[in-house]
Amino acid sequence: MNKHDYYMRRAIELAQKGWGRTNPNPLVGAVIVKDDRVIAEGFHEAIGCAHAEVAAFSNAIEDVSGGTLYVNLEPCSHYGRTPPCAKAIIESNIAKVVIAMIDPNPKVSGKGIEMLRDAGVGVEVGVAEEEAKKLNEIFINYVVKKKPFVILKTAMTLDGKIASTNGDSKWVTSEASRNHVHLLRDRVAAIMVGINTVIKDDPMLTTRLVDRVGTDPTRIIVDSKGSIPLDSRVLSKDSKAEVILATTNNIAKDKEKQLIEKGVKIIKAEGKDGRVDLKRLSQKLYALEIDSVLLEGGGTLNAAALDAGIVDKAMFFIAPKILGGKDAVTPVEGKGIQLMSEASTLKDVSLSKFGEDILVEGYL
Amino acid sequence: MNKHDYYMRRAIELAQKGWGRTNPNPLVGAVIVKDDRVIAEGFHEAIGCAHAEVAAFSNAIEDVSGGTLYVNLEPCSHYGRTPPCAKAIIESNIAKVVIAMIDPNPKVSGKGIEMLRDAGVGVEVGVAEEEAKKLNEIFINYVVKKKPFVILKTAMTLDGKIASTNGDSKWVTSEASRNHVHLLRDRVAAIMVGINTVIKDDPMLTTRLVDRVGTDPTRIIVDSKGSIPLDSRVLSKDSKAEVILATTNNIAKDKEKQLIEKGVKIIKAEGKDGRVDLKRLSQKLYALEIDSVLLEGGGTLNAAALDAGIVDKAMFFIAPKILGGKDAVTPVEGKGIQLMSEASTLKDVSLSKFGEDILVEGYL
Repeated sequence: MNKHDYYMRRAIELAQKGWGRTNPNPLVGAVIVKDDRVIAEGFHEAIGCAHAEVAAFSNAIEDVSGGTLYVNLEPCSHYGRTPPCAKAIIESNIAKVVIAMIDPNPKVSGKGIEMLRDAGVGVEVGVAEEEAKKLNEIFINYVVKKKPFVILKTAMTLDGKIASTNGDSKWVTSEASRNHVHLLRDRVAAIMVGINTVIKDDPMLTTRLVDRVGTDPTRIIVDSKGSIPLDSRVLSKDSKAEVILATTNNIAKDKEKQLIEKGVKIIKAEGKDGRVDLKRLSQKLYALEIDSVLLEGGGTLNAAALDAGIVDKAMFFIAPKILGGKDAVTPVEGKGIQLMSEASTLKDVSLSKFGEDILVEGYL
Repeated sequence: MNKHDYYMRRAIELAQKGWGRTNPNPLVGAVIVKDDRVIAEGFHEAIGCAHAEVAAFSNAIEDVSGGTLYVNLEPCSHYGRTPPCAKAIIESNIAKVVIAMIDPNPKVSGKGIEMLRDAGVGVEVGVAEEEAKKLNEIFINYVVKKKPFVILKTAMTLDGKIASTNGDSKWVTSEASRNHVHLLRDRVAAIMVGINTVIKDDPMLTTRLVDRVGTDPTRIIVDSKGSIPLDSRVLSKDSKAEVILATTNNIAKDKEKQLIEKGVKIIKAEGKDGRVDLKRLSQKLYALEIDSVLLEGGGTLNAAALDAGIVDKAMFFIAPKILGGKDAVTPVEGKGIQLMSEASTLKDVSLSKFGEDILVEGYL
């Protein structure tokens, strides 16, 4: 690994400290190196906080002028929630900026680099670019596709069952897998389930981390008829995270009122068939600056989300056990695709292990 | 890797040349080393042929006396299809025998070693033992459990479907996976499917290898009522491999006669419910010296085999694609286990890749 790669990987490592706090901003880390020594580190801690470059300047242990700045995303050139970082870099007399990837936002892409070069700052782009793109896959999707990045997560037995014939599903996977799911909840802006899951399992849908306090995601319940019980645990005040009920005009007026009184946000996304239109819902979530959704649905909601084309990534946790059952629940139900040759093929598939379980990830 | 490991792995490599030809005998390879040079190699080529040790003696390029013999299984001490190898070793004046594993057959286990030691031959046991046991898992199961080693093999989508709602299943997995299945067919004594597969897919159930001519396994069709069409491709004369119809007294007399005329062997294994009793069938296959069965069933037969407790190993090929369908076919159907906590957990799970597909293997 060369020097540039080494420092950029450190910047990416720092960036990850912002997981789940920066949405819908990107994850950004910065390292300043002078005379082969790191003299400053910083990262974007949370939405509204200083950008990584500015954080690094504040943390510098000596004068940064003449130093090299490593940052995993092109410095911004515009006045947003904070002043432009490119300007701050120029004023600091940094000699060179090494960037992993340009800003994916077509409106500003390349402008930060241009501003730096115009001011005589050396710029190198593309170091550890692949890792940087993977790190910010949510942000890239959000600014390019203008929709939330939806991750379909499921946990099944090796023979493809998420629950037995009589609905038992505790637990499919190991503690290691379940802990990882809580880490995912900590990272995303929102979690989404169907009303059947709420009625059957009565989940809190909160983040429980082993080693630290997590951030609960916004909890979205897809409930076309508004049949959610008012005493559902997800509606309790134990979490400060917002609850969104995605419904239709089929919801009873008084139920809607009761839910609003309980602090629930109602989003109506009317579909042709009287059910929630998930594509329309996705657009409404984007308008709320929700950049990512962890879909922990049952087979029906998962199938509907795939049909609606809103799923970007799939994460299948597979426990090496066999359950059986013609009528057991499978991870994707609905009508299904009729021809095997037309099944949706995942791209960039990767494997990892969590205890005895296997995680298969890929992109749609 | 030390010298002993190195030569034993070569012996195991040689042993594998007998795959699918030695059943129900074990796979055995032998290497003779003298003055740090290999002076002979041999393997058990096929049932009825010379044992590996004797084959090595025949192939020796110089006098073996004083040499060291590496063999992955304890040399036999009894007169079977061939004279005892231990005797041949003693007569050859081999100085030392390195053995990977003792003979698992409780009747003869340790006797070959005893015979060698009594004659003053040095013996070392346990080199590369784990690999040797894995190599001969079929043989070990056959002599210890006195039943065929049954491998449940299935090919499914990531969401656990082996066929779509309307039954389409061509193809679930990649060519690389399918080629590997033909290699498995080449290795086992028999292949087993249910009558539904015969009616729906009309398969040949033969071995088609890419690079050489394979051996077709005995083809077993589980068909409780004897409803197999007489023009099924599996009954044609294109393969010399035997066809066994596993059925019950529900088969019509004239159908039975027609099948026998076509060369089909009829095995009746009456179950309480009028269906084939798979456990009884397994016993009858053992009596025919069938040491291994590749079960390529649909969801119903797979579930019945698991229920009957005859499955020893599971091999799930998983294609990274999503099909969906509440009524699509899953790899294990039947009634299923009701509690997730009581699902059958696989042991010694391993992962490998075939093209884009993932193979998950484990033992029941």
